[in-house]
Amino acid sequence: MRWLPGSSSVETWLLRKILNATGGAPVRLVLGDGEGVSPPGASPVATVAIHNRPALFRLLLDPQIGFGDGYADGSIEVDGDLVDFLETVYRSWPSLQSASWVTRLTARWSERLRVNNPRASRNNVHHHYDLNTAFYQRWLDQQLVYTCAYFPTPSATLEEAQIAKMDHICRKVQLQPGETVVEAGCGWGALALHMARRYGVRVKAFNLSHEQIVLARQRARQEGLSDVVEFIEDDYRNIAGRFDVFLSVGMLEHVGISQYVELGKVIHRTIGASGRGLLHFIGRNQPAPLSGWIRKRIFPGGYVPTLGEAMEVLKPWDFSVCDVENLRLHYAKTLEHWLARFERSAPQVSAMFDSRFLRAWRLYLAGSLVAFRVGTMQLFQITFAGPECRRIPWTRAHLYTAGSRQQEPKWMHSMS
Amino acid sequence: MRWLPGSSSVETWLLRKILNATGGAPVRLVLGDGEGVSPPGASPVATVAIHNRPALFRLLLDPQIGFGDGYADGSIEVDGDLVDFLETVYRSWPSLQSASWVTRLTARWSERLRVNNPRASRNNVHHHYDLNTAFYQRWLDQQLVYTCAYFPTPSATLEEAQIAKMDHICRKVQLQPGETVVEAGCGWGALALHMARRYGVRVKAFNLSHEQIVLARQRARQEGLSDVVEFIEDDYRNIAGRFDVFLSVGMLEHVGISQYVELGKVIHRTIGASGRGLLHFIGRNQPAPLSGWIRKRIFPGGYVPTLGEAMEVLKPWDFSVCDVENLRLHYAKTLEHWLARFERSAPQVSAMFDSRFLRAWRLYLAGSLVAFRVGTMQLFQITFAGPECRRIPWTRAHLYTAGSRQQEPKWMHSMS
Repeated sequence: MRWLPGSSSVETWLLRKILNATGGAPVRLVLGDGEGVSPPGASPVATVAIHNRPALFRLLLDPQIGFGDGYADGSIEVDGDLVDFLETVYRSWPSLQSASWVTRLTARWSERLRVNNPRASRNNVHHHYDLNTAFYQRWLDQQLVYTCAYFPTPSATLEEAQIAKMDHICRKVQLQPGETVVEAGCGWGALALHMARRYGVRVKAFNLSHEQIVLARQRARQEGLSDVVEFIEDDYRNIAGRFDVFLSVGMLEHVGISQYVELGKVIHRTIGASGRGLLHFIGRNQPAPLSGWIRKRIFPGGYVPTLGEAMEVLKPWDFSVCDVENLRLHYAKTLEHWLARFERSAPQVSAMFDSRFLRAWRLYLAGSLVAFRVGTMQLFQITFAGPECRRIPWTRAHLYTAGSRQQEPKWMHSMS
Repeated sequence: MRWLPGSSSVETWLLRKILNATGGAPVRLVLGDGEGVSPPGASPVATVAIHNRPALFRLLLDPQIGFGDGYADGSIEVDGDLVDFLETVYRSWPSLQSASWVTRLTARWSERLRVNNPRASRNNVHHHYDLNTAFYQRWLDQQLVYTCAYFPTPSATLEEAQIAKMDHICRKVQLQPGETVVEAGCGWGALALHMARRYGVRVKAFNLSHEQIVLARQRARQEGLSDVVEFIEDDYRNIAGRFDVFLSVGMLEHVGISQYVELGKVIHRTIGASGRGLLHFIGRNQPAPLSGWIRKRIFPGGYVPTLGEAMEVLKPWDFSVCDVENLRLHYAKTLEHWLARFERSAPQVSAMFDSRFLRAWRLYLAGSLVAFRVGTMQLFQITFAGPECRRIPWTRAHLYTAGSRQQEPKWMHSMS
């Protein structure tokens, strides 16, 4: 793919426009193998080669989609470390603060009007989660947990950190043997099985992804847990029954802000005023839509809320926020592990799909890593409780005591 | 104070109206020494005697102000434990959920339009905090900390719990020797002095209360800390200079929602993108105005925000919420200590002021205790950090490790 003959100074001028749009990141942009531009000063961290004119024009028209699609189809290449390159661009990109209030308001209302009805949700889920399970097995941990891990120390392995995350969640909601738990969006079932196995609770777990539910049921059978863990292929809006605890890990991002009130109703219907629960989700500091490319190619229907926006789920029902933990740095670390494993499996991924898929997913993983590292994205775990809940621990110390699962924490009702 | 002659069945009917308005709480209402009503079933936890007609009409006209003023002037008396009585009424009181959306919207917007300019703030602060310091010394802890304590165990003393609270805050923001801290709303200076004494930081602490600032300066001199802790009698809006850390404990309740954007500007101006901070404040699950009586007699200009509303302070500046802890039960426990000490000092308080003051403050302390116990009020500690902050601890484990002040936590920048 050589640059077309006749590349002109007009195109060099266009390159400069692109470079300026990045906020003057220290990167070098070149047209094919020829002319290039880079900002004065710092030496470039990477060279971005744009191999043809359509790629250049797409980049000008819509930088996010243009770069993502161009990178995926190979018409744009990055010479240098992709993560370093993306981190450099993210850090110099003009922040949302400088966006006009019209832009911000429009973005916000377009999210509120977005339709995420059950059919749309099913299609959105199918797009991402019904990919070949063997693909995810190549780069996730052994238990297939596709959400932010919790690293007690930064040197913990991914396997250890995913187990620690599940325990962290179970301790936060103080699971007791014999209690009932409903999980909305359960992936391949790792958390549901973990809760039943280690905490002696009964679980109903919901998921719209057929591929994931099939594997989850198979795992439950293999472990002899089918009588205590039920995997249901259905929308969270159809959850019925009463439970002690409501959990949702990595689903709120797919719910869409227009459905938060509906989700709140579901939570209230299932746990009532005496229940408790946890929401684990990717969040932001300020309202903003997802990157156009991520939403078009990776997560259709996705929206990442601020903490204030997420309150819309809990507020109407007088749920109290007991605890919020931001695990942003843990998601960056999780993604470092995923990306390294993904790269080691690159030949197999290419063979399973094609090189375009490989490059698109590399960009998605590297871009997500950088978003958490620089703070474009946050990861919130919110623990909440109904107004009549008696299972509020006195302090959070039990989360950090070795072997704390065996220790009964002091409860609110023994306090007053 | 005997009931007027000619108390009629109309007045009994009015008593029933009042009883119904409480949601049918199991309490007995009597007119003077005569006729009374109580709901069928459960035996009453207390008897409320209404001694004259004006008190009855004020109660009908505005239950909150009518009860508070009537209780304070002695025209309404409670026979039975005041805390038990209030808890019973709070628990059966119709919740905000059943309020119409017009009521809720009106309440919300009247808060947004409330003027809390520097002059109004000064008057509001003077009303409460410039009371005789000797009065507060009778029932607060030795260091005079007039905010929610942190009880590592429920049996900790108030003195221990206030010190633990100050350490908890200092550890949350990870104070390092030589750093600079600004405190907005510093009371009698206990936290500012604690930080300088135990963590080796330099502090500028702001407060509008003249009485409090005078004592705080005297304490700094006595401890030989005047060169590292500066107490400034001024409005938070006038804070100038750059600092590593911004702290505010128990001030947001007085700021008023109309000034949250202004407070955010002050925080951003003082700590910039690399700083970190903590807001400790009384909050709610759902937006609502303070009780009319509390706002009229105890905290003029006060407003208690939801967590979502408090985000208005941080959101415009891309501050990340790192951690939120809800210490509601700790405030109930703190108020149990305050109320018990207050009751032990009742004769002296009466002598300092008068019996009306004594009764008003008893009601305020008992009502606050109950509000935190039943969940009408929450206590949030929000730890936050600017987008370029490098002092984000890897986990929260260091908060719960004995002697953690000596341990250097792992920082974000050593992680990536």
